Amino acid sequence: MASLRGMTATRHDGRAPDETREVRITRGWLDHAEGSVLVEFGRTRVLCAASFTEGVPRWLKGRGTGWVTAEYAMLPRATNTRSDRESVKGRIGGRTHEISRLIGRSLRAVIDTKALGENTIVLDCDVLQADGGTRTAAITGAYVALADAIEDARARGLIAKGAQPLTGSVAAVSVGIVGGRAVIDLDYPEDSTAETDMNVVMTGDGRYIEVQGTAEGEPFDRALLDDLLELAAKGCADLTAAQRAALASGSEGVAS
Amino acid sequence: MASLRGMTATRHDGRAPDETREVRITRGWLDHAEGSVLVEFGRTRVLCAASFTEGVPRWLKGRGTGWVTAEYAMLPRATNTRSDRESVKGRIGGRTHEISRLIGRSLRAVIDTKALGENTIVLDCDVLQADGGTRTAAITGAYVALADAIEDARARGLIAKGAQPLTGSVAAVSVGIVGGRAVIDLDYPEDSTAETDMNVVMTGDGRYIEVQGTAEGEPFDRALLDDLLELAAKGCADLTAAQRAALASGSEGVAS
Amino acid sequence: MASLRGMTATRHDGRAPDETREVRITRGWLDHAEGSVLVEFGRTRVLCAASFTEGVPRWLKGRGTGWVTAEYAMLPRATNTRSDRESVKGRIGGRTHEISRLIGRSLRAVIDTKALGENTIVLDCDVLQADGGTRTAAITGAYVALADAIEDARARGLIAKGAQPLTGSVAAVSVGIVGGRAVIDLDYPEDSTAETDMNVVMTGDGRYIEVQGTAEGEPFDRALLDDLLELAAKGCADLTAAQRAALASGSEGVAS
Amino acid sequence: MASLRGMTATRHDGRAPDETREVRITRGWLDHAEGSVLVEFGRTRVLCAASFTEGVPRWLKGRGTGWVTAEYAMLPRATNTRSDRESVKGRIGGRTHEISRLIGRSLRAVIDTKALGENTIVLDCDVLQADGGTRTAAITGAYVALADAIEDARARGLIAKGAQPLTGSVAAVSVGIVGGRAVIDLDYPEDSTAETDMNVVMTGDGRYIEVQGTAEGEPFDRALLDDLLELAAKGCADLTAAQRAALASGSEGVAS
Amino acid sequence: MASLRGMTATRHDGRAPDETREVRITRGWLDHAEGSVLVEFGRTRVLCAASFTEGVPRWLKGRGTGWVTAEYAMLPRATNTRSDRESVKGRIGGRTHEISRLIGRSLRAVIDTKALGENTIVLDCDVLQADGGTRTAAITGAYVALADAIEDARARGLIAKGAQPLTGSVAAVSVGIVGGRAVIDLDYPEDSTAETDMNVVMTGDGRYIEVQGTAEGEPFDRALLDDLLELAAKGCADLTAAQRAALASGSEGVAS
Amino acid sequence: MASLRGMTATRHDGRAPDETREVRITRGWLDHAEGSVLVEFGRTRVLCAASFTEGVPRWLKGRGTGWVTAEYAMLPRATNTRSDRESVKGRIGGRTHEISRLIGRSLRAVIDTKALGENTIVLDCDVLQADGGTRTAAITGAYVALADAIEDARARGLIAKGAQPLTGSVAAVSVGIVGGRAVIDLDYPEDSTAETDMNVVMTGDGRYIEVQGTAEGEPFDRALLDDLLELAAKGCADLTAAQRAALASGSEGVAS
Repeated sequence: MASLRGMTATRHDGRAPDETREVRITRGWLDHAEGSVLVEFGRTRVLCAASFTEGVPRWLKGRGTGWVTAEYAMLPRATNTRSDRESVKGRIGGRTHEISRLIGRSLRAVIDTKALGENTIVLDCDVLQADGGTRTAAITGAYVALADAIEDARARGLIAKGAQPLTGSVAAVSVGIVGGRAVIDLDYPEDSTAETDMNVVMTGDGRYIEVQGTAEGEPFDRALLDDLLELAAKGCADLTAAQRAALASGSEGVAS
Repeated sequence: MASLRGMTATRHDGRAPDETREVRITRGWLDHAEGSVLVEFGRTRVLCAASFTEGVPRWLKGRGTGWVTAEYAMLPRATNTRSDRESVKGRIGGRTHEISRLIGRSLRAVIDTKALGENTIVLDCDVLQADGGTRTAAITGAYVALADAIEDARARGLIAKGAQPLTGSVAAVSVGIVGGRAVIDLDYPEDSTAETDMNVVMTGDGRYIEVQGTAEGEPFDRALLDDLLELAAKGCADLTAAQRAALASGSEGVAS
Repeated sequence: MASLRGMTATRHDGRAPDETREVRITRGWLDHAEGSVLVEFGRTRVLCAASFTEGVPRWLKGRGTGWVTAEYAMLPRATNTRSDRESVKGRIGGRTHEISRLIGRSLRAVIDTKALGENTIVLDCDVLQADGGTRTAAITGAYVALADAIEDARARGLIAKGAQPLTGSVAAVSVGIVGGRAVIDLDYPEDSTAETDMNVVMTGDGRYIEVQGTAEGEPFDRALLDDLLELAAKGCADLTAAQRAALASGSEGVAS
Repeated sequence: MASLRGMTATRHDGRAPDETREVRITRGWLDHAEGSVLVEFGRTRVLCAASFTEGVPRWLKGRGTGWVTAEYAMLPRATNTRSDRESVKGRIGGRTHEISRLIGRSLRAVIDTKALGENTIVLDCDVLQADGGTRTAAITGAYVALADAIEDARARGLIAKGAQPLTGSVAAVSVGIVGGRAVIDLDYPEDSTAETDMNVVMTGDGRYIEVQGTAEGEPFDRALLDDLLELAAKGCADLTAAQRAALASGSEGVAS
Repeated sequence: MASLRGMTATRHDGRAPDETREVRITRGWLDHAEGSVLVEFGRTRVLCAASFTEGVPRWLKGRGTGWVTAEYAMLPRATNTRSDRESVKGRIGGRTHEISRLIGRSLRAVIDTKALGENTIVLDCDVLQADGGTRTAAITGAYVALADAIEDARARGLIAKGAQPLTGSVAAVSVGIVGGRAVIDLDYPEDSTAETDMNVVMTGDGRYIEVQGTAEGEPFDRALLDDLLELAAKGCADLTAAQRAALASGSEGVAS
Repeated sequence: MASLRGMTATRHDGRAPDETREVRITRGWLDHAEGSVLVEFGRTRVLCAASFTEGVPRWLKGRGTGWVTAEYAMLPRATNTRSDRESVKGRIGGRTHEISRLIGRSLRAVIDTKALGENTIVLDCDVLQADGGTRTAAITGAYVALADAIEDARARGLIAKGAQPLTGSVAAVSVGIVGGRAVIDLDYPEDSTAETDMNVVMTGDGRYIEVQGTAEGEPFDRALLDDLLELAAKGCADLTAAQRAALASGSEGVAS
């Protein structure tokens, strides 16, 4: 468990504005998947499974490059009240589509598809329990599952010896304006009252992959935007450290 | 953990023919659901969430009776190779439909809908990892989640004081003919080579709710059918004991 | 018409408990299909068409084995009140899926896919009128259509001379507990009040292919289960005789 | 059986150019439907079921007028080679949609919706076997089923005593240019080689409800169009006579 | 702008019975499409885009013939009140299907698919604003877009030098009985009160491709049918003249 | 036409880095819609229709607040090569969903739903031609259509006299890193080679509603992010001026 504590606690759960929730990254949670992680940001719990398969989709064949993609979904009772299943409704909702695409783009930003060879990795991020920040937890956990799947493929000789498909690491965190103040890693009660909500995806070396900020209430000015970006940078650094710790531990252990 | 061991071990994993895998029933695995259980039959792992809501579907309104139903699904990487999501395909497969209906029927067999009042309980059974016996594990775990949801509703005054919607308990187990011999609780390697596969759902007092036997290879005769039924009766009794132990323990603890 | 009468009549339509309804099997009801049967169990009327095509689905190619599958459906006004079309609703319901799979499994149990060669036979079972027992009538009729399609293929040289893809015959019947008593071949009024409902699929030599029993009301005990299995064995034997009679008659005639 | 013979036979099946196939109209083919007809134009066989229900769709409520609509479909093996089910494909094809709408419009042309009162009649036209002319057979048969459903409703007091919802009768026939010559009631071999194909729906008193002509090959001129219209008028008159004969006979008999 | 005026005006918008609305055909309205036309019949405005691609659908491959097809759709606010999008509803409605098929058939009637070679042209006809006659405007405009796409392909060497895939021109117009009188090119107020509505598709040399007449109210007799056919012939001749004028002008100009 | 020119031109089309394409805003392009705008950013052409209806969706009823939502779509041949229709595919793609949601959120940010009363405005943004920046053009045009629809409702007495549902104006622009340099309003050739792509939605008074930046290639650092934000602020100010000019002109005229 990566304890990321700091300043004086003043939020509804006692956290400091720049303090993420307790982060737990459990590797090897599944027996079949080439990489798998149960990632927890407080009560938010996402199961990330990386499936490595030889070959690529038809539209990529013969180029010598690989493919990484992601699918995000929520169990019906992940939330406080039950939601209908998208499989039963017969269609994927807009939010699900949007987050799946975000996760895929975020991971591809640290993938050298040439080095991956003609292989495909699918990241399934299934939210078992939701308490705000499911997409940022998913990205943060999926990176670790992805790294494990690549190591597994290397061990099985499916990736060339000297090749390193990973060009960096990725972590993501939400920031927002709650009660007029910038805070990090909003849980559901904070998220549902936030005036502004921003998700930031960054590389381990502090560069941006994705910045998505939305004014839910009042539009925000440049000063607040700068505050949020700074907060996010700190949070992503903390999460990067937690990912490293998890990957440094034994593959079946819990890195936290 | 309910250890259900017995005879001399002779199966590929060392179990005796009438020995179920290690069964673990973890109650309260989710924070939001009115009842929730992570049930494990060996490596098969199913998350069962019971959602209690006031009111009933339109076609039942005004009759003073409640409704219990179930939805079963598998995460894409529950299995050895990844399956496509039914939400992405835009339709529920036949197998999913069939198992959802089986779980619903099985639970309704021990529900007094009058005593439940005009309330609905939906059981979501999501297979996190599959290694044979997912439907029987789902039924066995869902019963415990259902019992917890009913107690929760009673505590919140949503069910009349003297009313007892549960008229009994339900457990289910698979039996089959593998290598010419009747065995219980088949794991995936056994299931995929079984000549006959049967799922039996029974009440805690030893009566049948559902018997579904299928000859996958050779048709079977009455003597083999009798062997299978006997084996199933023993297994369901063992599972009933495990359920009771789980329900007797503290609600947030692990009963196993 | 195969009259299968017996004991003293005591049911709402005067039948004895072990007496099936009047069974009619009309072969060659369609001009185009390689095999076709209009099967009637009393007022239940199912049109079974067997379509033989050379080649197999992609996932079976190159193995030298054939494939047999089935699709079941009901016309909207087969029932007492009109049902919406599944084609208009845009999805197949759970019941339809389940029965289609059951019919396919039942027929494959008497098929030697090696002897069939790389050919596919699809059985379409469309219920023109429903009065209980549509799935058992469908299986019983589909077997005859399947036998005709195989003979037709043999006559056209599409199946090797010495090969016999059929390893036996299949018939199916429903049994249930109505008013506390075991009865066979329930019609709709009986089916809708049955405490227990069981469908049994058997080979012509008296072995089981499928046993599906469900407690609609009270769970049932082993003694009742034994009664039902015995009743079903007798009924399947009667139906097997009716199938033989139909197949022995001229292909365009009515065997009943 | 309405034998509609005439001129010297010169078509592939020996019919004269203005000669329809043998037409059979069997009333009361189903036990449940308020009106039902098995209509046969030669080997084309369509089951028409009329379902009468009290009440109207929401958008018509409170206007004191009724509604008549139709759904057309083909069984998968109605045709020479099997077609996929639209229910399995998950969508209705354009041709199905188009014909359903045509049948509905044709029948509404002879319905006084005020006299029908706030009641709905759905006509299900399911093609059991197709050999050309399925839509015209469907319209011709559906009219008879509709008439029977209205009489049934009147007998049950669901339609006001003096009211007559039917303002006339409807019949339909196909005409076309085959081998440079105008012919009537094309069967499949003719239909698939026709240069021009026209479906004409007429009232019993010889007026037009629908005229749909399509040049499949060469565009056609006014003289040919006039020939086709004349041929159709004669054919519809013959079919009107067959409908009258069927309705004049006892309700369970075969009028032909 | 092709002004097609004549007789004394007596309709709600002052037109004579045989007078079409002002017709505008603007070629080259899109930058990407191989052919594109914004066609206006009064306030009805349809954007027709012709997409030329090398190759044909799988079922046509290797025959040396091309393919022409069409898709028709309406923007949600083309009409007076907003309609739901068919993409959001998840299915194409019957009317859309029907008109798409009509446009495709109409254009194929003047295409020599051998001369087209193994190439495909898709005509997308999107109604930007609807005021009656959208399908006839679509056919009339689509022909011009098709002609432009063929010339473009010829210029790029994708069609053999001497080959002429177009065997004629096509135009379409609606006619109907409004207030007991035959009129041409009905706008929405006329269309919604017409007793009979007919769409006629004709070649430039005055032959029929498609005749579709429907009695919306009273069935019509042969004399009225003849009046409508005559009116349509005159209107199609006028539209053919407008098409020729448009094609004779510079490709980016407005021919009207 | 709002000419927004500036610095020395150095891009493939001669624009300066901070120079948007020629912007045209044509109001009243449709006759039926309560507000409608054809907005053009260079060759990108989007038709925005605002539909005002009394009443709100069920989930909002009785709260005295209104609703504004948006749907975005592309015509199949808006792009360089034809895309399949989402209505034909039977599902909305992820990108379509995402942009529809973005437009809706952006407009709601300047709506006082209390002042709107229980009324709904749907903005349909249909891309007639795409050359990069379709979502930003859509937002910019939709705001003007929205403003017109609100004035139209006020004129018809559907919005309370003193009420002002609009709390500000909204415009949007894309910025990106192309060839290592920050540029504004990317056209398709630029967009498809951009290393980073950012869409910024701002109010007329210079505050942020939405910031969405994505590294398509290399992750970007804070300095580049600051450059992009500055460029976007200038561009949104220019677009705000163009919107004001359009709204100041006569409603049927072209403001550009």
